[in-house]
Amino acid sequence: MSQVAIGIDLGGTNLRAAVFAGLPDSADALLVHRESVGNDRSPAVIVERLGVLIPELLQRTERGGLRIPVGIGFAGMLRGHHGYVANSPNFGWHDVALGSMLQARLGERYDVGIYNDVNAITYGEFKLGAGIGASDILAIFVGTGIGAGAVCDNVLLQGANNTATELGHTKVVIEADARLCSCGLRGCVEAYVGGKLLQERARKDLDTWASSTAVDLAGGVQNVHPGHLDAAAAQGDDYALELYSEVSPMLGLAIANAVTLLNPGRLVLGGGVFSRTPVLRDHVLAAFEAAVNPPAREGLQIVEAELRDTGGLVGAALLASGH
Amino acid sequence: MSQVAIGIDLGGTNLRAAVFAGLPDSADALLVHRESVGNDRSPAVIVERLGVLIPELLQRTERGGLRIPVGIGFAGMLRGHHGYVANSPNFGWHDVALGSMLQARLGERYDVGIYNDVNAITYGEFKLGAGIGASDILAIFVGTGIGAGAVCDNVLLQGANNTATELGHTKVVIEADARLCSCGLRGCVEAYVGGKLLQERARKDLDTWASSTAVDLAGGVQNVHPGHLDAAAAQGDDYALELYSEVSPMLGLAIANAVTLLNPGRLVLGGGVFSRTPVLRDHVLAAFEAAVNPPAREGLQIVEAELRDTGGLVGAALLASGH
Repeated sequence: MSQVAIGIDLGGTNLRAAVFAGLPDSADALLVHRESVGNDRSPAVIVERLGVLIPELLQRTERGGLRIPVGIGFAGMLRGHHGYVANSPNFGWHDVALGSMLQARLGERYDVGIYNDVNAITYGEFKLGAGIGASDILAIFVGTGIGAGAVCDNVLLQGANNTATELGHTKVVIEADARLCSCGLRGCVEAYVGGKLLQERARKDLDTWASSTAVDLAGGVQNVHPGHLDAAAAQGDDYALELYSEVSPMLGLAIANAVTLLNPGRLVLGGGVFSRTPVLRDHVLAAFEAAVNPPAREGLQIVEAELRDTGGLVGAALLASGH
Repeated sequence: MSQVAIGIDLGGTNLRAAVFAGLPDSADALLVHRESVGNDRSPAVIVERLGVLIPELLQRTERGGLRIPVGIGFAGMLRGHHGYVANSPNFGWHDVALGSMLQARLGERYDVGIYNDVNAITYGEFKLGAGIGASDILAIFVGTGIGAGAVCDNVLLQGANNTATELGHTKVVIEADARLCSCGLRGCVEAYVGGKLLQERARKDLDTWASSTAVDLAGGVQNVHPGHLDAAAAQGDDYALELYSEVSPMLGLAIANAVTLLNPGRLVLGGGVFSRTPVLRDHVLAAFEAAVNPPAREGLQIVEAELRDTGGLVGAALLASGH
């Protein structure tokens, strides 16, 4: 009987968990659990909840063992490689030693590892999803923000501080009037093509000077989301197409430059916005093709993410297991 | 007595070689050799010359051994990890199986490894130069072109095709009238800040519409090189400062985005142009500071390359030795 491992995704809305028994060969879970994160998000409360939940989940699977790997994909910025959370807007945390707090609470029976949530998803895709068979992948998720992760020569790219692959905060505009990003700096690609800021901008434009069939499709300006913009673009809507012709080359450029630097064998695309914006995706990929260094493009496969919600759970469990 | 290893730098002008006996602890060489590459650069001729030279060098050191590592840093674009040269403008080569040709010529006594020349230099700096003690470095060399190499979690970043870290060919301008790079595409940072193309542009400007004290410093437009532009900029010359205010942010941005993606602990700067253009370097670094993702900047050390001419020899020998 193989060793079990626990994967957890601690996101802004949900706490999801799964117990795996077939890693590294299978992403099938013995048990999957989901609960709302809720409003009380103090570190002590979250650690206590995990401290109760994790042994409970294990007990329900009727599996045992020692040194059980517990990998947590966390929606926040880490510092270093020991589970220290530098900052998490979703939780309102600054400088929280999540890894050591949870390890102390769970005790020696468990081996806790904390990972950036997008890195965990990337690693799950690498081992058991869209990356199977590749040694070098770059995964890009266009959702509310723009997240990315990379595996280079079979190893997750984490960097010296564990803040590598922040593709959303690579800069695509140098000018002083570049758009303001949620990170506080200007000109990040996420400020132009991240779902949240793209949507805010479109609503503001459409509320003031612009008109678009996206408003009709959405049933009002304040309901417009990128899916409506994309449907409008597909119908030849001027506003949507102009917006796309401005922002698509920016994300295409950012992806092209990342591929030029990392030379992955596979580019994995996913995320809640990209899955609902096929026209945007096509424009971005056309710009990517024009800007990528041709030798890095040679042999590159462009594929869809496969694991969806379970990717982060699988990836965190794999990383914590040392696979 | 430790194993010997041979490092070779096969560049556009010189063929340099060294025999090392103290790797991975010391970059001191038993013997250093340099000769001109000369005009006859056919693969057969180059392989035969190396086939004669390498055993000769070993013999002169009076060392022996079996499976002697021979690492070659080559000025060209490789494809894959077996010493296949896709393209080398310096040698006029396309699709040359340099690794297997040389291995066949030298026989089993030697273990041949072929590496991109900038990657070899980067690895030498990582192990025995400016990178000592770091696990993640990014090295950038601004010379005729803009080359870069990276080590991530102690492993040289090569990518799926062995064409990673082509920083010079990351794009910084999207517009259709972006400057043409020697790679055939437009908007590469090398087209703006690489020594060759920067110099060509300045000479053309100064020959037509612009004036600058750089011309006096150089003794004529056709002698102007980036060092003269930098001396002029230091004196407040309008042309040089305007040129710098256009191109410095581009290289600053390219470096910032690479640091944001790779999150190195150390940024190693070198190259023949950067060493003679302190004003340009300062402008570039100021732009870098403004554009880098702050979490990736935290703790980053910015240092000078240390090994100069021997970096590529040491790095190629280390890589071929498996260190």
